Amino acid sequence: MKNQQYAPLYEALMRRKQQSPVSFHVPGHKDGHVFPRKGADTFRSVLELDATEITGLDDLHSPEGVIQEAQNLARDFFGSERSYFLINGSTVGNLAMVLAVCGRGDTIIVQRNCHKSVLNGIELAGAKPVFVAPQFEKETNRYSRIEADTIVEALRQYPEAKGVLLTYPDYFGRTYPLDEIAEVVHDQGIPLLVDEAHGVHFHLGKPFPMPALEAGADIVVQSAHKMAPSMTMTSFLHMKTSLVEETTISHYLQMLQSSSPSYPLMASLDLARYYLSQWTEEDRDQLLSFIEDVRSTFQRASSKWTVMPLSQWDDPLKVILEVNEGTGFDLAEALEAENMNPELATSDHVLLTIGLAPSLDVRMLEELLREVDCQLKNKPKRATMRGEQRPFPKVHTLAMEDFNQKQSEWVAWEKATGRVAAEPVIPYPPGIALLMKGEWISRDHIDWIDSLAGQGARFQNRKIKEGIRVFKGE
Amino acid sequence: MKNQQYAPLYEALMRRKQQSPVSFHVPGHKDGHVFPRKGADTFRSVLELDATEITGLDDLHSPEGVIQEAQNLARDFFGSERSYFLINGSTVGNLAMVLAVCGRGDTIIVQRNCHKSVLNGIELAGAKPVFVAPQFEKETNRYSRIEADTIVEALRQYPEAKGVLLTYPDYFGRTYPLDEIAEVVHDQGIPLLVDEAHGVHFHLGKPFPMPALEAGADIVVQSAHKMAPSMTMTSFLHMKTSLVEETTISHYLQMLQSSSPSYPLMASLDLARYYLSQWTEEDRDQLLSFIEDVRSTFQRASSKWTVMPLSQWDDPLKVILEVNEGTGFDLAEALEAENMNPELATSDHVLLTIGLAPSLDVRMLEELLREVDCQLKNKPKRATMRGEQRPFPKVHTLAMEDFNQKQSEWVAWEKATGRVAAEPVIPYPPGIALLMKGEWISRDHIDWIDSLAGQGARFQNRKIKEGIRVFKGE
Repeated sequence: MKNQQYAPLYEALMRRKQQSPVSFHVPGHKDGHVFPRKGADTFRSVLELDATEITGLDDLHSPEGVIQEAQNLARDFFGSERSYFLINGSTVGNLAMVLAVCGRGDTIIVQRNCHKSVLNGIELAGAKPVFVAPQFEKETNRYSRIEADTIVEALRQYPEAKGVLLTYPDYFGRTYPLDEIAEVVHDQGIPLLVDEAHGVHFHLGKPFPMPALEAGADIVVQSAHKMAPSMTMTSFLHMKTSLVEETTISHYLQMLQSSSPSYPLMASLDLARYYLSQWTEEDRDQLLSFIEDVRSTFQRASSKWTVMPLSQWDDPLKVILEVNEGTGFDLAEALEAENMNPELATSDHVLLTIGLAPSLDVRMLEELLREVDCQLKNKPKRATMRGEQRPFPKVHTLAMEDFNQKQSEWVAWEKATGRVAAEPVIPYPPGIALLMKGEWISRDHIDWIDSLAGQGARFQNRKIKEGIRVFKGE
Repeated sequence: MKNQQYAPLYEALMRRKQQSPVSFHVPGHKDGHVFPRKGADTFRSVLELDATEITGLDDLHSPEGVIQEAQNLARDFFGSERSYFLINGSTVGNLAMVLAVCGRGDTIIVQRNCHKSVLNGIELAGAKPVFVAPQFEKETNRYSRIEADTIVEALRQYPEAKGVLLTYPDYFGRTYPLDEIAEVVHDQGIPLLVDEAHGVHFHLGKPFPMPALEAGADIVVQSAHKMAPSMTMTSFLHMKTSLVEETTISHYLQMLQSSSPSYPLMASLDLARYYLSQWTEEDRDQLLSFIEDVRSTFQRASSKWTVMPLSQWDDPLKVILEVNEGTGFDLAEALEAENMNPELATSDHVLLTIGLAPSLDVRMLEELLREVDCQLKNKPKRATMRGEQRPFPKVHTLAMEDFNQKQSEWVAWEKATGRVAAEPVIPYPPGIALLMKGEWISRDHIDWIDSLAGQGARFQNRKIKEGIRVFKGE
């Protein structure tokens, strides 16, 4: 596409830098002139870009100059009607989508295993979530697939729903026929909102799965930093809909994002769009051959794990190792000991993410994996719950209104059964709730949390091994 | 203070970088290995720090490692009981303070000219704001001073208030006896919340005014990037109170901030605290002499402006020029034409901010100002409203509940009188509302907005010269 070879925001910042302007404004580091020596070398080149809303640099919250131009190039590349730069992560995109679609007491249909920001949005809105559960897939040994039938059933039970919000792909890069679901949702006259945090690169075309916008989603949120090369905490929000007003989305974005947005972060979004738009067939072939090398190197290196096969529904940038003995947590630890950090570990799996270009030496990888294999041989095995299926209800709801008005208290696990959780329990990553705020706590939940914590899963809850916050008097 | 000479988070990131780890995780730029050539040189050194929550790098939303250590050093330096790193600006700190203190229908006393994030927080909470107006000060020609008596009066009229939220200092660095107000508020048994966005450096001691924490504030939000050297969009939130629970603040901060917080931003907070803690008397003397040079250079350069004098209530890092003819907007334009960007212009004033160390050559400044003086001589004068006093009611309230449930429409200014504003009108900077969402629109408001827009003030509203969004049926 014409123009896509420019990065207007990044280039405006570079032009300003070359003019050596005199700063009588914030930030206090004055283009890096005032900064501790300790960090000066590392930060210098970015501080020169760390500007504020002075003349010529536009305003994220009311764009009409270089930021608008950069956003319009993103719009053209992604094929939306309007695209926004987000500098508070996909978190803020999810919050804004929820708040734009539902107010107090409204119903919204969401995936049981959505990201916590979706639940937070529902709590802020004072809305009523209806949870739909993904299907357990034998093929992947995970809950990864939302069926159109499940959505039909939820819409039949809750015809008052103001929207449907799904995660696509899941954390492991798995997709499903979202276009069928879009049709069902649109038949009801409501918008389909998609948390596509892990799918920004789907717009590069085959062999990546279909992007959510193309499948018919109305609003899509994508982390640019996760799979494309932008700085952490940057995302896109795309709209292509007549069902939600742009002014409503803009309103919540300006409300929930800093009034001093970071220019380096915004510039990195501009550069990430530029990077994707300049992607060639040659880049693709080189990447696919690299992925194949990484996969076969892992497969050859040890009998302790199996590299899970890819289907047309899977993102090839995600490599999933299924452990053949011990737990995924053990394997992750062994990898970390060799200075290789995986994306995520579960009882059964270790997830690795690959970038959009080769970024490591495969021969070195081979050597490191030999060490990992040795380490695992000498390691005591931890208890595992491999392949266990948790029976989530297919469709259920929770009253989340007035959570912030209720008193809560901390109780030890032995006193928690039958109480209502006042904090969600979310292993992180992937940030998906085992137990949601507002859910009754069962013995089953407690066993599950106990087992995961014992295996080494990480939680954001304080004192998770000992107990939990519950609402008083329930 | 011992330990303050370390920057544990920054140093942990540097150690990780030196180990050249293999990244099988997000972000997609893989420590900078995958990045467009266009921006690679500029971003490289910071991308190596742009990590994620891998082992050893802690988790902002559940800190127990290097982030907690860095936050504890901030706590010790600022003298709080708990300090938080914010990576979504003071915006998120203000939102969290409001949400932590008031729920739906609750009353909160706030300054009429608070930052828009405070109004946004009240709207999100569904709370009822009671506005107190600052006094117009002849000395400064601005609304800059909140009187303890005004707070006493508001608390008498609204004894059900859950808290008082004030801005301290104002945008121009002006302070007032906050300790007297803290006493009045605490007598009522409620917390004093302070938006100290422009006062992080007050902790360096004389000649800076008293910091809000020392004056007795319960929760304080400070932009670290505005007056101290950290990256834009970073702030601190400090708590020193028994009136608000830490878990409540933590809850809203994790809700409203990215679940993928930026490590370079967090590291720059660590470095900013380090910088402040290493500040010496020699640094202070050098700074004060630099400020004096800048002030006298401005004063000597032209008769078109007067450098306003400093009192003990003023932050010496703010230099205020009062225009003797024309408007502040004209002067700002002339400065910008010479590549000097001021912080803010109003009808009467131009505000300049100085960093914590000399960052420009005063002789060069002298030459540039000669040009500015020439430019202004040849410039046609615009209409001005200098020194005009807007009669804000001393204490008044607004029902902000259910704003998000109401329909709105756009109307031209000639049809706007008597309608209720559905969008605030906020010249930016300083981000303080002339007209608030929910206020009745008077002829006076329209004239004021028209005049400011005509003089060149910037607004975030779309089509502000033509009209405004109002609520339907009111």
